[in-house]
Amino acid sequence: MERSAQRGRFLALEGVEGAGKSTQVRLLGDWLTRHGLPHVVTREPGGTALGEQVRRALLESDRVIPRAELLLMLAARATLVDEVVKPALERGVVVVTDRFSLSTLAYQVRGRGLPEAEVRRLNTFATGGLEPDLTLVLDVPLGVGVQRLDRRGRAPDRFEQADADFHARVAEAYAEFAQHEKTIKRVDGTGSVDEVHAAILALLGRRFPETFGGAAV
Amino acid sequence: MERSAQRGRFLALEGVEGAGKSTQVRLLGDWLTRHGLPHVVTREPGGTALGEQVRRALLESDRVIPRAELLLMLAARATLVDEVVKPALERGVVVVTDRFSLSTLAYQVRGRGLPEAEVRRLNTFATGGLEPDLTLVLDVPLGVGVQRLDRRGRAPDRFEQADADFHARVAEAYAEFAQHEKTIKRVDGTGSVDEVHAAILALLGRRFPETFGGAAV
Repeated sequence: MERSAQRGRFLALEGVEGAGKSTQVRLLGDWLTRHGLPHVVTREPGGTALGEQVRRALLESDRVIPRAELLLMLAARATLVDEVVKPALERGVVVVTDRFSLSTLAYQVRGRGLPEAEVRRLNTFATGGLEPDLTLVLDVPLGVGVQRLDRRGRAPDRFEQADADFHARVAEAYAEFAQHEKTIKRVDGTGSVDEVHAAILALLGRRFPETFGGAAV
Repeated sequence: MERSAQRGRFLALEGVEGAGKSTQVRLLGDWLTRHGLPHVVTREPGGTALGEQVRRALLESDRVIPRAELLLMLAARATLVDEVVKPALERGVVVVTDRFSLSTLAYQVRGRGLPEAEVRRLNTFATGGLEPDLTLVLDVPLGVGVQRLDRRGRAPDRFEQADADFHARVAEAYAEFAQHEKTIKRVDGTGSVDEVHAAILALLGRRFPETFGGAAV
C-alpha cells in the first residue's frame, strides 16, 4: 500500500484543567518543527479571529447558560474546521489542537448535563463530521491539575472556577470515553513535562509510523 | 373561559433589512407604556450581555461561515429565552422582540442555504420549544427597505451588505412562511410610520382583545 504523503494527520490533546495540554501541544509543535514536518498548532475555543472573540465571551462572562455555552463552542469549532483544520489537512500537514469534540462531551454533556445524543448531533453539524485521527487524553489525578493551576499565577477563568464536583464528572467522562473509543488514548500525565512529552511521542510513533516513526527513539 | 391575567404575550416583529422593525417595536413599546401594560422590548441577536457580545461578533466580523453564523445566533437566542423572555412571560408581561426564530429560517436557511430540518431542530434545542404567540412580518418591496437603509446614514452591517439575490431569497422566505403558518401574519409596511403602527395595533386588537382590545379604535 502506498504511503499517502498527501493526507495530514489530525491530533487532539485533551484533559482536565491543569493536565498540561497547552505545554504538551507546544512541545509537540516544537518537535514537528525540528523534524521539518509542516504542521498547524491551534486551540479551542479559539484558533480563528471569530473563535478568539467567542473564547473571550465564554471564559470572561459572569454567567453563560449551558445551551449557549455549547452553541458558542460549536460556532468556534465550525469556524476552526473550515478555516484552519480542513485546509491544513488538505495540504497534507499535521494539525495539533488543544481540545476538540471530546471536550464537549466531557464538559457540556457530563459537566453541565446536556443530553448526549442531541449534543453529538449538534457537534456533527458543526464539524461536518470531521474528527481527529487520534485524541490523547492527558491523565492526571484531579488534585494535580488544581495544583498546577495554582502555581500558574493568573486568575482562573469561568471553567477553572467551576466546583470540584463538576471537575470530577469531567475527569470521569474522559476516563470513560478513552476506554470505549478506539481513536481516544490515555497518556499518563503525572510525570515531568519531558516524560509526558516522550510518552506522547512513543504513542504517536506506534500509531503513525509514517509521520512519527523516528519519534520513540 | 377565564381570561388569564397571569400569562404574558410573546410577539415578534420580522422583515427584511429596512422594513421598519426597530421603529415599530419602539412604537409598540411606547403604546404599551401609555396604556400601563407591563412589557419588555428586546432584539435579536442581542438583548442580554452575552447576546450583545455575539451581536458585535456577528455584524462586525469580515467573514463568518454560515454554520457559525447560525450557531452564534442560536447561542444568543438561548440566552435571551432563559434570561429575558421566559421570566417576563411568567410574570405575565408582554414581550416584544425585534426578530426571533423566523429570521433564522429566512436568513440562515433560505439566505445562506443551510438545511431546513436540521436548522429547525437546532433552533428548538436553543429555544427549548418556546415560540412567539404571534410573529408579524413587515411587508415592504425590497427596494423600499434598501432606500430606508440608505437614508439612515450609518455604515451597513454584514447582513445589510449581502447581495441583492440574498435579500430576495430572504424576502421570498418571509412571504412563504407567512402564508403557511397561522402564527405568522403579514402587515403592509409600505405606508407611513403611523399607518404601519395603526395596522399593527388593529391586528393585535383582533388577535389578543384581552390585551390590545382598545387598540384598533
